[in-house]
Amino acid sequence: MSKTVIEHVLSRLQDVGIRDVFGVAGDFAFPIDDAVVNSKAVRWVGSSNELNAAYAADGYARIHGTAALCTTYGVGELSAINGIAGAYAEKLPIFHLVGMPASRTQAGRRPVHHTLGNGEFELFYKMAEPVVCAKTIMTPENCAEETERLIAAALYHRQPVYMAFPTDYAIAPVIGSAQPRPEPKSDPGALAAACSAILAALSKAETACVLPGYLLSRVGLNAQARDLITTSNLPFATMLWDKSVLDETIPQYVGMYDGALMNEDVRAFVEGRDLVIGIGAMLTDFNSGSFTAKIERSKSISIQHHSVRVGEALFNSVEMKDVLVELVKRIERKSIMNAPKPQGLGRPVGKPGDPITVDYLYARWESMLKEGDVLVTETGTSSMGLAFAKMPKGSTFHNETLWGSIGWATPAAFGAALASPGKRLILITGDGSHQLTAQEVGQFHRFGLKPIIFVLNNDGYLIERLLCKDPESSYNDVARWHYHKLPEALGCDGWMTTRVTTCGELDEAIRSAESCGTGVYVEVVTDKYAASPLAQKLHESLATLYA
Amino acid sequence: MSKTVIEHVLSRLQDVGIRDVFGVAGDFAFPIDDAVVNSKAVRWVGSSNELNAAYAADGYARIHGTAALCTTYGVGELSAINGIAGAYAEKLPIFHLVGMPASRTQAGRRPVHHTLGNGEFELFYKMAEPVVCAKTIMTPENCAEETERLIAAALYHRQPVYMAFPTDYAIAPVIGSAQPRPEPKSDPGALAAACSAILAALSKAETACVLPGYLLSRVGLNAQARDLITTSNLPFATMLWDKSVLDETIPQYVGMYDGALMNEDVRAFVEGRDLVIGIGAMLTDFNSGSFTAKIERSKSISIQHHSVRVGEALFNSVEMKDVLVELVKRIERKSIMNAPKPQGLGRPVGKPGDPITVDYLYARWESMLKEGDVLVTETGTSSMGLAFAKMPKGSTFHNETLWGSIGWATPAAFGAALASPGKRLILITGDGSHQLTAQEVGQFHRFGLKPIIFVLNNDGYLIERLLCKDPESSYNDVARWHYHKLPEALGCDGWMTTRVTTCGELDEAIRSAESCGTGVYVEVVTDKYAASPLAQKLHESLATLYA
Repeated sequence: MSKTVIEHVLSRLQDVGIRDVFGVAGDFAFPIDDAVVNSKAVRWVGSSNELNAAYAADGYARIHGTAALCTTYGVGELSAINGIAGAYAEKLPIFHLVGMPASRTQAGRRPVHHTLGNGEFELFYKMAEPVVCAKTIMTPENCAEETERLIAAALYHRQPVYMAFPTDYAIAPVIGSAQPRPEPKSDPGALAAACSAILAALSKAETACVLPGYLLSRVGLNAQARDLITTSNLPFATMLWDKSVLDETIPQYVGMYDGALMNEDVRAFVEGRDLVIGIGAMLTDFNSGSFTAKIERSKSISIQHHSVRVGEALFNSVEMKDVLVELVKRIERKSIMNAPKPQGLGRPVGKPGDPITVDYLYARWESMLKEGDVLVTETGTSSMGLAFAKMPKGSTFHNETLWGSIGWATPAAFGAALASPGKRLILITGDGSHQLTAQEVGQFHRFGLKPIIFVLNNDGYLIERLLCKDPESSYNDVARWHYHKLPEALGCDGWMTTRVTTCGELDEAIRSAESCGTGVYVEVVTDKYAASPLAQKLHESLATLYA
Repeated sequence: MSKTVIEHVLSRLQDVGIRDVFGVAGDFAFPIDDAVVNSKAVRWVGSSNELNAAYAADGYARIHGTAALCTTYGVGELSAINGIAGAYAEKLPIFHLVGMPASRTQAGRRPVHHTLGNGEFELFYKMAEPVVCAKTIMTPENCAEETERLIAAALYHRQPVYMAFPTDYAIAPVIGSAQPRPEPKSDPGALAAACSAILAALSKAETACVLPGYLLSRVGLNAQARDLITTSNLPFATMLWDKSVLDETIPQYVGMYDGALMNEDVRAFVEGRDLVIGIGAMLTDFNSGSFTAKIERSKSISIQHHSVRVGEALFNSVEMKDVLVELVKRIERKSIMNAPKPQGLGRPVGKPGDPITVDYLYARWESMLKEGDVLVTETGTSSMGLAFAKMPKGSTFHNETLWGSIGWATPAAFGAALASPGKRLILITGDGSHQLTAQEVGQFHRFGLKPIIFVLNNDGYLIERLLCKDPESSYNDVARWHYHKLPEALGCDGWMTTRVTTCGELDEAIRSAESCGTGVYVEVVTDKYAASPLAQKLHESLATLYA
């Protein structure tokens, strides 16, 4: 018997690796929800709300490569849309399945719930357009072809796609069939030319370095980039968005590059090279030290997902994977001269009875990191501190550096944890950010996960205090929660929860967290203005940040 | 000295009654945030997240008539957009002030945070289009005129408007000036004709009744509609969305009309009239007993905000207010024959030690209602039960009946409470719905409010269990929170919080709540399938609901 529309789509999503569907159920999405729970190969992961579900899918996709999200019409999809936009900006392919009223309800322009009451049913579909790389309303007739088109688009652009399912069409049999689209291939001539241009530029340059980018993780080419580094012995520095895309324990690593804001030795090294090779990296504001990074276009190469630029010369129809593989074959080994040694945050400075200072806090967090850890950090002062920690082998650092939607980290950490069985997940977030999405803490326990969560309580939005006119403006204040009591209320029975205000208490809490064997939630209380160095630097360089 | 763009807009918003701005601060919105906190007449009300802020603005506007919301670019506005869509559907004028990167940043297409990294800056502005009645990007040159245009649009359509402020333009002086647009006026000829047509239809009809609609509350014409009822002695019934728009204690009230689903006597009465006069009402699915309401168009009149329909004849350019005032002058008094007496929910049925049943619960809630109470009820089984309670004089019932976005009620209740000083606010929500936005409970305490909150814990989305194929589907489950412990975690120090499982405990909790003088949060535990009668009826009539 032929599959129904939704069964067909789910089956094809399984083929491309989808194992979990995040979402919130709703009546117009019941046919999708039913198909998921009836599927043997795909799990339903219900979230507390749709934005949290989208963030969880985002976090999951950062580890797993792809993710799926299901929401209902109007109320559900619009609640999730900021999360979808974030996935679009940060290049994460999320398959967004949206339930829609039945075709007859639409044709009759009926004033049903979750509509604007104006008889229009395609408005939300249109609203999604700027934040997805492809979209469709599934019918039995178009389902086979559209499914292939959307899967191919999501994988090619590494961005979300929107698939709407009218309730009656969702359960109708698929008509016709379609072949999966072939993976994009490099044009052999363009590939040869691009690689030759890269190698020529390299042989002309006396010194060179690499800036490996976040996109390597998105397309799963970390290993190929690493091969290139170890084969060529090219030194590399990393920017914030790109942190941990290559192991920071590799000898070619020189440290974090953040324009002129931090690590002057790394800046001088990178900007002093004759040639800088970016691989899937992008000079956004927070990736370039507020645009203080100075890399001349003529002295740079950019290897992107489907193109290469060498100086001013652009090569299209070349796939990043093919370029990396080809370069590994042909590149010559260089010797590294006068490279900086990557610095971490040093030893925690503070006596046990001291209040928790920046000098203690970030170094202590760094010292707890272990091989393979998955570290999720929230936009704000905490990620700006942790970005300069030296990460152990195989550990990964996750942050929403371009989109920067506060609240992202808590649900994203849940999604990342679900995608990382057997790994230790550490979430570090700020109090203000945590308030946006804190209910998702309950999800970790519900799904049997044991994260270590730190909530930095500095009584408000510290990064905003540093960036606005008057730090004491009331809009930087938040409700004063008793954070460490949240897990219990959210059903996290048996967790270790605590509130620490001194260096000694923090140290003790971390030690206990590492051995207790349960989920952990630590409220870390600091001074209102205890800002990590980069946050402090941003405060001092507002002019370039908002130039 | 001339005002800045944002000062000018805030000043004009004050003129039309804005006293509070809900929102979450963000760097691109700092100029707006600063102007609000520096204003003497407008208060900043920071919310936990943007969707909650939008819902709070929605709840506030239901009481106050208008509301304002401020969010930052991209991440903020998109998080709020479901709340804006709800306000659009439910006709609530919210002034949405959105911070935007500086004009020079936009012109330079810079890859800054909160963008998609593609150099496009007007995408989110365009995404808002279907859910606002007018939108603009403010500049010093257009500010004066655009402010008047948008204020007039919001008040005319009773829907949200979108005002974006590039950071540099926001603080630039306004160039030029503009006059407020005059209020819309009825065309005298059309008004006279419409009223004559209504009166002619009335005099021809032997029997008639009124269905007063939610729009009366939106445009603030409840008193005029009441005058019409008391002058004419026309009986009236109310539908769900419209509940309490006129006092249910008025002798002309016959009860709740929900098509063929509930109250057969009211159905027979309404549908048996020769003439049914709707005033700002709309036959949506949940307002018409899943489209079981049968009112012939030829036997009905619809008085809308700016138009009147009598049978098939449409009269434009007539204002609802003018129509009501004119009708009160000219209408004749009728005598009511054989009208049903409005029924409430009766006495709570259950012994003190019994588990809390539907028969006890809703009647007990009804019996606690007092004159002037503001009752906010969430979409789901609880509102479907409470809609049939008889409301005391001056008390109001609030529900998001068309848009039906679960999670709405908790933040909306906060907004409603803020707009109702001196009144008692009661929030009744379900566990599943509460999880979406529960963090907003902390806001009540932060702003010194003392609500009485009931969270109906029936272990999942009960309304979904009743509407879907398999009630036990895992997608209807939610994380098992210890709800009654939430207020403490959210900083509601000193509140009365409790969890009740028997009729006696519920009764005792309500008695304590009424005298304790603090905020109150009661977790009410019932059986998983303890559904209010209407919810049960919907379960039994899925065919018409999704027809």
